[in-house]
Amino acid sequence: MTDPVKLTADLIRCPSVTPEEGGALVLLEKLLSDAGFDCTRADRGDVSNLYARWGPKDHPRSFGFNGHTDVVPVGDEAAWTMPPFGAEIREGVMYGRGATDMKSGVAAFAAAAVDFVRDTPPNGAIILAITGDEEADAVDGTTALLDYMSKAGERMSACLVGEPTCPNTMGEMMKIGRRGSMTAWFTVTGEQGHSAYPHRAKNPLPAMARLMHQLASHELDQGSDHFDASTLAVVNIDTGNAATNVIPAQCTGAVNIRFNDLHSGASLSEWLQVEARAVADACNVEVDVRIKISGESFLTPPGPLSDLVAKAVETETGVRPEMSTTGGTSDARFVKDHCPVVEFGLVGRTMHQVDECVEVAQIEQLKAIYTRILQDYFA
Amino acid sequence: MTDPVKLTADLIRCPSVTPEEGGALVLLEKLLSDAGFDCTRADRGDVSNLYARWGPKDHPRSFGFNGHTDVVPVGDEAAWTMPPFGAEIREGVMYGRGATDMKSGVAAFAAAAVDFVRDTPPNGAIILAITGDEEADAVDGTTALLDYMSKAGERMSACLVGEPTCPNTMGEMMKIGRRGSMTAWFTVTGEQGHSAYPHRAKNPLPAMARLMHQLASHELDQGSDHFDASTLAVVNIDTGNAATNVIPAQCTGAVNIRFNDLHSGASLSEWLQVEARAVADACNVEVDVRIKISGESFLTPPGPLSDLVAKAVETETGVRPEMSTTGGTSDARFVKDHCPVVEFGLVGRTMHQVDECVEVAQIEQLKAIYTRILQDYFA
Repeated sequence: MTDPVKLTADLIRCPSVTPEEGGALVLLEKLLSDAGFDCTRADRGDVSNLYARWGPKDHPRSFGFNGHTDVVPVGDEAAWTMPPFGAEIREGVMYGRGATDMKSGVAAFAAAAVDFVRDTPPNGAIILAITGDEEADAVDGTTALLDYMSKAGERMSACLVGEPTCPNTMGEMMKIGRRGSMTAWFTVTGEQGHSAYPHRAKNPLPAMARLMHQLASHELDQGSDHFDASTLAVVNIDTGNAATNVIPAQCTGAVNIRFNDLHSGASLSEWLQVEARAVADACNVEVDVRIKISGESFLTPPGPLSDLVAKAVETETGVRPEMSTTGGTSDARFVKDHCPVVEFGLVGRTMHQVDECVEVAQIEQLKAIYTRILQDYFA
Repeated sequence: MTDPVKLTADLIRCPSVTPEEGGALVLLEKLLSDAGFDCTRADRGDVSNLYARWGPKDHPRSFGFNGHTDVVPVGDEAAWTMPPFGAEIREGVMYGRGATDMKSGVAAFAAAAVDFVRDTPPNGAIILAITGDEEADAVDGTTALLDYMSKAGERMSACLVGEPTCPNTMGEMMKIGRRGSMTAWFTVTGEQGHSAYPHRAKNPLPAMARLMHQLASHELDQGSDHFDASTLAVVNIDTGNAATNVIPAQCTGAVNIRFNDLHSGASLSEWLQVEARAVADACNVEVDVRIKISGESFLTPPGPLSDLVAKAVETETGVRPEMSTTGGTSDARFVKDHCPVVEFGLVGRTMHQVDECVEVAQIEQLKAIYTRILQDYFA
């Protein structure tokens, strides 16, 4: 039996702060190769990625796990009460950067997969797509793995992302989708002038105020079947003009939108452009818009995959998981273009924090859940 | 005859950048004392001020001149083609800091007053209230002179401020009032949070956008008999939040208002407070308002004083001056609480600029106009 707790500790001891590989993927590649997995490094740029498959390529029943071994920086190391790369256990709790996000998740599905293929070799394939960059830009991470798979004719028929999904209690929540996320930066340019003669200047600030007021007042939607209402947050307006007798020439602003399946990055971009143009025309100023779509919304509607995962979680924990679409983004936003994807992992309360930690019992439980998912999928 | 051109040159050679006296008031005190004026220094703080009266105290016909000898800094001295404190004359034009703003004006009314009391001693008093701080804070300048006068029982029955008032052509404009000026700074405070969960934060930015949009959209008035419409300019909005996944806790904004006689600093302050409170309530944030009233609007309605000045200007220049209330603020905003006040001076096109200069002929003409004003006032 592969011990997921020891594997978690070994991974925590690899200082794999993005984009450092830190030994984590090398360790996993060894473990998986020894267990009969075909391993390929799908590195791109300065990011290391590991693709591992047991069983035949492109089998119609190819269950995939996705996760990441990179971690966010330690932050103020002096504030930690335990060594951040020590994986020390105190009163049943293991401490370290990545303890919940998500070296325990990777360890749990790797241990489950290794034992499963050894004990009950399935009729199909098991795939592990593990990236070294989920926490930073994520442009050469899971995306690179999926690009590799596409080129190499590799395919998953279903995928589970092992990110922590439970807010407080083990088993209470899984994710069947995520909202999309995008940011728009606006630059309004007018003409500088004297405050005493505003008609001789073109003040960009009333235009910015009007635009931000209109964007913030607009109800994007009231939510959909599986999603909360989309939100728009004005996150910045800056001018930098300290002189009260001067009308400045330019100001900048930014909004961040989290959107559900009633919108797309493209539809919202079009809306923002139309609003910006209307204000530019009305206020006789220039409005430049720059948009970055971090991820589209996605939904794997409740069905066979989510039911299978929910049943496994309930059997092992006694808790029926809520099928949620809340939270930020995850690499599931990339996987969703490849195959049905859901997310389930342990309690993520301390992720990114000082003294990040995980209950040792939860790691064992998570391996048991992942094992049951494999059993049920290949039953 | 007192030569106003030589006097202007002597004053320019006194480097009286606010708050330096630079010898300018000492020079004037000597001139005026010798001519029989009672001179008192009404200095306050680091500001020097000169009060000079010829004739009896508190006479019902006490004509006053107000002006300043301080000047703004030279700025980039290398950019000057003539020495900024040299008072050199080239092709009938005298160059130097204060040449138009307003050592020529002070020289013209001092020369006119000295010659007038000597040649045709009037039945009444002539007062010169000259400050060393009009260009900077102006809190210990003309205000200090008026405070001194109030305590000492000194009084003007009418006052002419000798600031440059003509945009391009000598004689074309006098001022019978000025708009008021005030600035309001707003601080909107909410609660920081994550952009993905705006309902858990209290975003100050939509509140700021709403407030600024409402203030900027509001028509204060459409002008009054003697004033253009009041104006409000949004001059700043700042947040300083670069993180698009963070809703900031606070942002600041500022507006500058130039207002006519349909408003007061108090009435506008009340309006701003009401608008801020409404937005605070509607958006569930705190809105702090700080207000500085730089000057109330004032108007000396067209009447005997303005007619007398206009007639003198027209007689000497052939141009009938427009009775205007445009422009920024001047010390007339303080004098207006003391007695009827109008403003007339020469062309101010180069004031505060590099190579500030004045046509020598305009100084002579200005003395002639001021002399005629005294003649007509005491006729």
